[in-house]
Amino acid sequence: MTQPTANPSTPIILTGDRPTGPLHLGHFVGSLRNRVAYQDTYRQFVMLADSQALTDNMDDIGKVHRNVVEVALDYLAVGIDPAKTTILIQSQIPELTELTFYYLNLVTVARLERNPTVKQEIILRGFERDIPAGFLTYPASQAADITAFKASVVPVGEDQIPMIEQCNEIVRKFNRNAGRDILVECKAIVPEVGRLPGTDGKAKMSKSLGNTINLGASADEIRAAVKMVYTDPLHLKVSDPGHLEGNVAFIYLDAFDPDKEGVAAMKEHYTRGGLGDSVVKKRLEGVLQEMLAPIRARREEFAKDRGQVLQILKEGTARAREIAAVTTDEVKKALGLSYF
Amino acid sequence: MTQPTANPSTPIILTGDRPTGPLHLGHFVGSLRNRVAYQDTYRQFVMLADSQALTDNMDDIGKVHRNVVEVALDYLAVGIDPAKTTILIQSQIPELTELTFYYLNLVTVARLERNPTVKQEIILRGFERDIPAGFLTYPASQAADITAFKASVVPVGEDQIPMIEQCNEIVRKFNRNAGRDILVECKAIVPEVGRLPGTDGKAKMSKSLGNTINLGASADEIRAAVKMVYTDPLHLKVSDPGHLEGNVAFIYLDAFDPDKEGVAAMKEHYTRGGLGDSVVKKRLEGVLQEMLAPIRARREEFAKDRGQVLQILKEGTARAREIAAVTTDEVKKALGLSYF
Repeated sequence: MTQPTANPSTPIILTGDRPTGPLHLGHFVGSLRNRVAYQDTYRQFVMLADSQALTDNMDDIGKVHRNVVEVALDYLAVGIDPAKTTILIQSQIPELTELTFYYLNLVTVARLERNPTVKQEIILRGFERDIPAGFLTYPASQAADITAFKASVVPVGEDQIPMIEQCNEIVRKFNRNAGRDILVECKAIVPEVGRLPGTDGKAKMSKSLGNTINLGASADEIRAAVKMVYTDPLHLKVSDPGHLEGNVAFIYLDAFDPDKEGVAAMKEHYTRGGLGDSVVKKRLEGVLQEMLAPIRARREEFAKDRGQVLQILKEGTARAREIAAVTTDEVKKALGLSYF
Repeated sequence: MTQPTANPSTPIILTGDRPTGPLHLGHFVGSLRNRVAYQDTYRQFVMLADSQALTDNMDDIGKVHRNVVEVALDYLAVGIDPAKTTILIQSQIPELTELTFYYLNLVTVARLERNPTVKQEIILRGFERDIPAGFLTYPASQAADITAFKASVVPVGEDQIPMIEQCNEIVRKFNRNAGRDILVECKAIVPEVGRLPGTDGKAKMSKSLGNTINLGASADEIRAAVKMVYTDPLHLKVSDPGHLEGNVAFIYLDAFDPDKEGVAAMKEHYTRGGLGDSVVKKRLEGVLQEMLAPIRARREEFAKDRGQVLQILKEGTARAREIAAVTTDEVKKALGLSYF
């Protein structure tokens, strides 16, 4: 398998997911859609971050294992092309743990504790004082992932920007110690489209909240989910003027309906009054069914041959490992950890 | 090179040193002498812990690199036999960083902060809040080193016992999660002979205090060091009764003079009065010169062919890596991190 974008001057981009569940519309809007575009302009690495997922899933190891192939199927289904994008499994590249190990010497405990992303995630997960050490230190692991492939661009959510800053601190400290630029600093790019709310109107679409529409959802599942979509609780009669703010049906239409003018007209009608939620939802369902049908079909096609999916992951991981090994060699040489 | 003690029922012992300087009489008494004995009864692994040495030596990388071969020369000089003992370089076994990475998920930050050895070392090194993360987490790294080789016996100083306890906690937690005994618990053995004081009478012999006698010391260096040895500051005239407590000359004689009766007689004479320090020191010098001359000669012999020393380290490391790879494979399989 050749990589048409493997030109050395092509900027390198790294993205990835923690394989803890099937991907959904939130991922599609926030990252997957962009990756399909990125693979033509960047040399793209997409990482299945199974080791990182374990940092807070040691009690459900099987979930992580299972979802590696599930998420890979989602990738392939949306059009991430293994001929253009290197898909890799984190745990199968031991060099990433080597880099993590050495980077841990370049960051203080106090600095990790001050990292706003880590702080937020600790609250979110209710760890308090019982934070697994692997969780506190995961910024060093992320720095390893990013720098191993010399990625200069990393797409992240707004809340992940401190992670990129911490990565660059490690890079600068390492390069300063080494006396030359071995590691590459990276730039965060934050997708224009913000986070997609859940079907229930909650800020985040999340499997644990049960408010997702998965990329592999069946037509029935899509229909049922759209029926439950949160709209305007004050819009009781069709003739009432409806509100758009926090109205998930319209947020989704904005995100997915290619007919922007049609949506604009519908919004105007809705706010004026006289347009029922059922009409809006009917349109939304149509849009989602049309968008997801080919994704589901491709997903089912790939799912028929898991051996092939594993082969794609194996090849991508091997290709990625070669690159990570070169970086790790450079890092270890600079640390004087080279003898034979 | 064969290992006569590679019988599967032979218990495995792991020891090692941080290669930050030449080894001295303190190491000889506390560990090296025992290792020469252990290699006939245990399957012995001796680790040059260069990665661990970096956790607080990132500002002096060259020192660690240089001392790997120097410490290996000390090993060979005292009689650690590569045909019986596997000598390995920590950084050349990436599997050790993999295990560390996963063990970090099994230990909380609070637990690491409570580790008395870590606490003590943090004070000793003046880290306060600027503790490198790699330093706080080094108990996980030590657990990786010990468990990688399935060592059941680990000789340590009294102050290192909490590290062994923490290792066993990780082992038990891992095995419980895995539902079977993959990792092996270990037992600390504390050498009978306590810590050797420095030539100046300070509790610890330490390069940074300048109170050591190195194993490779020249005859002149030994002579000069013995002259400076701390004895009894109240023993001003030969006829005065001398005191033995804290008297380094006698502590060293106890540790190294094979003629126990001769030493006992000398002690009696000294405490009675009438025996000058110069006589005691003359005896001590004779003992040390006799003990260290063959060590120095062997050291010089090995030092002539550094290529051979590196070859010994290369073979030992390769042998050790095979074993660590098997353990790492078992660990990753148990964590569901196995796909192809």
